[in-house]
Amino acid sequence: WEGEFFPGIPKIKYEGPKSKNPLSFKWYNAEEEILGKKMKDWFRFSVAFWHTFRGTGADPFGVGTKVWPWEDVDLWCFHDRDIAPEGKTIEESNANLDEVVALAKELQGTKIHPLWGTAQLFLQPRYIITFGAYALVTHYLGGENYVFWGGREGYQTLLNTDMEKELNHLARFMEAAVAYKKKIKFNGTLLLEPKPQEPTKHQYDWDAATCANFLRKYGLIGEFKLNIECNHATLSGHSCHHELETARINGMLGNVDANTGDPQTGWDTDQFMMDVSEATLVMLSVIKNGGLAPGGFNFDAKLRRESTDVEDLFIAHIAGMDTLARGLRNAAKLIEDGSLGELVRKRYSSFDSELGALIEAGKADFEMLEKKTIEWGEPRVPSAKQELAEMIFQAAL
Amino acid sequence: WEGEFFPGIPKIKYEGPKSKNPLSFKWYNAEEEILGKKMKDWFRFSVAFWHTFRGTGADPFGVGTKVWPWEDVDLWCFHDRDIAPEGKTIEESNANLDEVVALAKELQGTKIHPLWGTAQLFLQPRYIITFGAYALVTHYLGGENYVFWGGREGYQTLLNTDMEKELNHLARFMEAAVAYKKKIKFNGTLLLEPKPQEPTKHQYDWDAATCANFLRKYGLIGEFKLNIECNHATLSGHSCHHELETARINGMLGNVDANTGDPQTGWDTDQFMMDVSEATLVMLSVIKNGGLAPGGFNFDAKLRRESTDVEDLFIAHIAGMDTLARGLRNAAKLIEDGSLGELVRKRYSSFDSELGALIEAGKADFEMLEKKTIEWGEPRVPSAKQELAEMIFQAAL
Amino acid sequence: WEGEFFPGIPKIKYEGPKSKNPLSFKWYNAEEEILGKKMKDWFRFSVAFWHTFRGTGADPFGVGTKVWPWEDVDLWCFHDRDIAPEGKTIEESNANLDEVVALAKELQGTKIHPLWGTAQLFLQPRYIITFGAYALVTHYLGGENYVFWGGREGYQTLLNTDMEKELNHLARFMEAAVAYKKKIKFNGTLLLEPKPQEPTKHQYDWDAATCANFLRKYGLIGEFKLNIECNHATLSGHSCHHELETARINGMLGNVDANTGDPQTGWDTDQFMMDVSEATLVMLSVIKNGGLAPGGFNFDAKLRRESTDVEDLFIAHIAGMDTLARGLRNAAKLIEDGSLGELVRKRYSSFDSELGALIEAGKADFEMLEKKTIEWGEPRVPSAKQELAEMIFQAAL
Amino acid sequence: WEGEFFPGIPKIKYEGPKSKNPLSFKWYNAEEEILGKKMKDWFRFSVAFWHTFRGTGADPFGVGTKVWPWEDVDLWCFHDRDIAPEGKTIEESNANLDEVVALAKELQGTKIHPLWGTAQLFLQPRYIITFGAYALVTHYLGGENYVFWGGREGYQTLLNTDMEKELNHLARFMEAAVAYKKKIKFNGTLLLEPKPQEPTKHQYDWDAATCANFLRKYGLIGEFKLNIECNHATLSGHSCHHELETARINGMLGNVDANTGDPQTGWDTDQFMMDVSEATLVMLSVIKNGGLAPGGFNFDAKLRRESTDVEDLFIAHIAGMDTLARGLRNAAKLIEDGSLGELVRKRYSSFDSELGALIEAGKADFEMLEKKTIEWGEPRVPSAKQELAEMIFQAAL
Repeated sequence: WEGEFFPGIPKIKYEGPKSKNPLSFKWYNAEEEILGKKMKDWFRFSVAFWHTFRGTGADPFGVGTKVWPWEDVDLWCFHDRDIAPEGKTIEESNANLDEVVALAKELQGTKIHPLWGTAQLFLQPRYIITFGAYALVTHYLGGENYVFWGGREGYQTLLNTDMEKELNHLARFMEAAVAYKKKIKFNGTLLLEPKPQEPTKHQYDWDAATCANFLRKYGLIGEFKLNIECNHATLSGHSCHHELETARINGMLGNVDANTGDPQTGWDTDQFMMDVSEATLVMLSVIKNGGLAPGGFNFDAKLRRESTDVEDLFIAHIAGMDTLARGLRNAAKLIEDGSLGELVRKRYSSFDSELGALIEAGKADFEMLEKKTIEWGEPRVPSAKQELAEMIFQAAL
Repeated sequence: WEGEFFPGIPKIKYEGPKSKNPLSFKWYNAEEEILGKKMKDWFRFSVAFWHTFRGTGADPFGVGTKVWPWEDVDLWCFHDRDIAPEGKTIEESNANLDEVVALAKELQGTKIHPLWGTAQLFLQPRYIITFGAYALVTHYLGGENYVFWGGREGYQTLLNTDMEKELNHLARFMEAAVAYKKKIKFNGTLLLEPKPQEPTKHQYDWDAATCANFLRKYGLIGEFKLNIECNHATLSGHSCHHELETARINGMLGNVDANTGDPQTGWDTDQFMMDVSEATLVMLSVIKNGGLAPGGFNFDAKLRRESTDVEDLFIAHIAGMDTLARGLRNAAKLIEDGSLGELVRKRYSSFDSELGALIEAGKADFEMLEKKTIEWGEPRVPSAKQELAEMIFQAAL
Repeated sequence: WEGEFFPGIPKIKYEGPKSKNPLSFKWYNAEEEILGKKMKDWFRFSVAFWHTFRGTGADPFGVGTKVWPWEDVDLWCFHDRDIAPEGKTIEESNANLDEVVALAKELQGTKIHPLWGTAQLFLQPRYIITFGAYALVTHYLGGENYVFWGGREGYQTLLNTDMEKELNHLARFMEAAVAYKKKIKFNGTLLLEPKPQEPTKHQYDWDAATCANFLRKYGLIGEFKLNIECNHATLSGHSCHHELETARINGMLGNVDANTGDPQTGWDTDQFMMDVSEATLVMLSVIKNGGLAPGGFNFDAKLRRESTDVEDLFIAHIAGMDTLARGLRNAAKLIEDGSLGELVRKRYSSFDSELGALIEAGKADFEMLEKKTIEWGEPRVPSAKQELAEMIFQAAL
Repeated sequence: WEGEFFPGIPKIKYEGPKSKNPLSFKWYNAEEEILGKKMKDWFRFSVAFWHTFRGTGADPFGVGTKVWPWEDVDLWCFHDRDIAPEGKTIEESNANLDEVVALAKELQGTKIHPLWGTAQLFLQPRYIITFGAYALVTHYLGGENYVFWGGREGYQTLLNTDMEKELNHLARFMEAAVAYKKKIKFNGTLLLEPKPQEPTKHQYDWDAATCANFLRKYGLIGEFKLNIECNHATLSGHSCHHELETARINGMLGNVDANTGDPQTGWDTDQFMMDVSEATLVMLSVIKNGGLAPGGFNFDAKLRRESTDVEDLFIAHIAGMDTLARGLRNAAKLIEDGSLGELVRKRYSSFDSELGALIEAGKADFEMLEKKTIEWGEPRVPSAKQELAEMIFQAAL
């Protein structure tokens, strides 16, 4: 399997911000170090098999990830039914999968391996099997993560639904998955992907906080991380930055689905992230998290239906990667400049006082606080300086 | 203080559904039993001091809850600054409060007491004191609950905010509140009120699941319940029914703010609930919860600005109470009829099998499931019967 | 073609509100007169071929509208590609269509004919032909309307779009359609169907006012009416009632797509209308419009994916028709009772004065008004009585 | 009146993009020419009296627009009740206004004059007078525009509203305003300001297309232009760019309220525009419109409540002006580079053919088109190249 899948598309190189060549990187320079780490290690970009290679519908490009024409993408991710068609019975489906997996293993060679795998199946009883099979496959291919994405775990109406029972069942399934993972000695991270709606009216993994509550309630909190998708974040009423921070604060930031939505549409448009401002906020969170490994960035993004040139697929990936790379450079600039961090530090500086330290340590009770407050009189209200923060942020873009 | 505050407004009586008299109840009949409990005990209605008596701006009606002209409202609720004006210093404010509280105690007599109290103050240092003072007041007045409503606990932009630090501080505050409650032997329930936004861009108590996650993370889960406001629910992208069910499933359904919003406006309109369909769903949850006591229903609802007759205040409360009462009657009808419950039971009946029981008990691992699935072949997909469920529901309205 | 398409489904009869039989009408009684007109004439229900007969995907039920098993549906509507598969060339497609149309003509017999036809094609050059062909077909089948539904007339991003040019082209197309209609002597109504988004980010026929502006700008205002879809209305930020009223006031209310959406989802869910309150508002507008003929009501609604029983299709249509029928009964009750109308009349009664009449006639200039205002002093602000209006409305449900 | 209103705030100067001084312009250089016009003439910035000088509530800064401390703002705008308090009667209010207006005239000197004036009053009868008085004032002060902003022209519920009557009354009012304008020989532009909601559930001037339809229906289309506010645009479900383009295409783009909202909040946050990407899109429209004169840009934007330093007011205005200035520079870059324009031109190039020209001229009927289409066979679908357009756009930021 040595054919060239994208004739006419050259190797994509870094040419710097002045380049006018659409088929070049202007900001992403894989080997360049930013804040002490190579860009490729900050991002660990992976290509989504389903959108990238199968997304154009009429012209599926097949399985050949090896021919991906630019350097430094050595991760990919897959849905089960993307890479192997379903058979009439489970045995047939499994056989189809085995064959493709063997091929994938061979094509991967030693350099490429999956960032993660997942299963694209909806009916509950089969889904359980699917996890087993695909976790095994992901394991076999050297995958580093396994994503449980919220296919249809939700309801269309509460009228016909016993939500408590369904959540209990979901917990049983996740417990069994954890047990199975340990049994097969799969050391990758298990990831949940928060999503508020679509196709159901209400998914059970609505947003990061909802997922965290589910995992805490059922004693699963240490066993899973989250795969934050920006478009899912905005559909749930939060900014992508908010969801990343919520995941991070809860110790659960594991991976980023680097797409974006339209702020005025109420469904998942899965567009490539092209907004430098959003990308900078994303990277500020990722840097605070110390990176994402063993997770990374994948593109759950697809071309617009109207983008019918093969070239468009490359332009989209290049622009998406460049946008994030520019975001990383901007975030580094903000951190190195330090004035935004200083503004935030000052805002909370009253907690650096002796009393503040007592409060933070949980040692200040209401009597002590009342006494202090009466001593001090009316508090001074320091400005939150939002406009200055915005000015500093925009200057770094 | 014996004056009549609403001249011309008669005592409001139950006259049944055929009555055309706007100043009568058509559905709410306090002493009538529904599903084995008096209507007044299902609802435990309380009047919101701030909207009801102070909401009209130019004509504040003062503190006289005693003159509330209809029967069977023997609960009220208050914000601190509604009942006592702020002084120049804390000592002055406290003196103002002391005076009003003494008056309120006297006016209450032995029949009326607060459903809950709360504090309407925003700046963090003072808020702490406030809780102390008002928890004491609520306690002194025999209040059964204390609500922490999300005034400004949130952010306008993450650029100037350390969300992790703020959540830690909030947890310290809640821990201190729990300690203080125990110290003063206040046996009432502490309530958080989920709210997604307004006035801040993002509140920390976004929705029920977010509140539950916060409480679980900081080990406070048993100490608080939730006060679900329907308009807050819809602003967070959930139906009111969803939020009530989420609170219930997490063991945290404590009180209902029985208002409603407009499905097409993005801010808190705090309208009186007038939709029988929504009220029926609300009551289905409340019944499943076995009622709300020691919580109840309060009206965080206000007249439209254009409603300038005194009479409108009464019409609004009557219609709001009647809507919920009609919802209770409908919910009882659905439960007694049983066909909706049966539809749901059937949908999950596969879990009543031997294997289903093993799954629910967490004793079915992936190997067992795979074996069973292969034995069975393709699963039959039973219809979820959403349209039938909707037909049954609508027929009961 | 005489087979029975829905074995086991009996003829659907009116059994009245007490009936518990899901396969009966409780509110829709075709021959019963309401406000001087038979129910069937108020509604002129039509069945949507695409959702009803082809919507279940795996089991397309074919073309047999004749076997529709209940009485009084003698209208249907169709998309071109639903009834005839596309061929490899236009000639082939046209041949396919010709064949199916001949069959449809035969099956229709003398009783049934299309409420409207439309074309489901997206690419601009072909669309033009399509209109020609399908307008001819609709004409041939005796259709009373032709709908231009907003397939893809919009943009995904303004960056690659010349909106002015596209609107000019659209106007040219509509002008040509009007000319063609006259040429073939098709006397049906041309209908535009407002839709804000989906699949594009922004459609050119966003809502009723946007369509009216487009038609006025290009001098086409008398040539088209609107087909208002409730789910499209809510997606554009308006209530269905608002869109109906806007269409009516502009003299353009021609047809109703009687579906509904979920107030918390941002895409077109095309559910059957099950909300009696919404249906009552819809019928208030339709009655004010004096009915919709030659338009009517069609169900652009589909079963939920999880509704897999054949029976569900019938339950959904019955419940949708019953909901509207109940809405009609409620609207009639409100009109006959008169108190809501009286409330509105009073609100504007100041315009019944001599000056009011001058203002309404456009004969009061600013000088006259200033003089009068100074004479009168501060205006009294009458209550808008929203809560009373809501109470009256809910009592009628 | 010669006092210094903002002690400690120096004159704001242009220092270029490398400056770290928050109290300097980095992008706005009033006298610099961009695309053949000075920056100050592209923008015609005006300061909103109500937010800027009265917005902080506790510390109103009075009327002294003259002391505005940076160069080149020689336009201001006002609401009536901002500059003159209401009296007990109309005569008193008028006297208050007269006094302030005389002062304003004197303070203005010869250099400053209003960009526009408007009236902040809600009750209909008084509003009419108000327009008379304030139009006169605006005229007297040399104002170039008069804005009718959508205060409360809308409804809270259709249940108590006769929308048709209200729109007729609104039209009568606008007709009288046009007559009065002509009578007093006020040559300024009359502006409507589209706004979808707030405070009412639904305003009559929902968006640009709705305003255009209203004006066309009542024969007022040539008499008014639109004042587009970006935050109003997004609340109505459109991008600001869309509303500007809609106004422009309808020949009605008159002024820009240069604020912004938060994409995840459903109310008017009136924030200063800080997003360079949005500003670039705004300026692309303004340039296409050949500028806005006699209109311009005003800041209907206010500080966040938490921004309590006097300095914040300056930072906000500087950042808002700089963001637009940077947007202008980017837009100029895109236009001079030409590749985005070329991409769009190519997309419609088929209309440059002989047939395309016939279509554009309205001379191609359906028969001709069918014949051509059959001759040509299946159309080729050229790529819309959205991702390339986004790449080019982002590169210019």
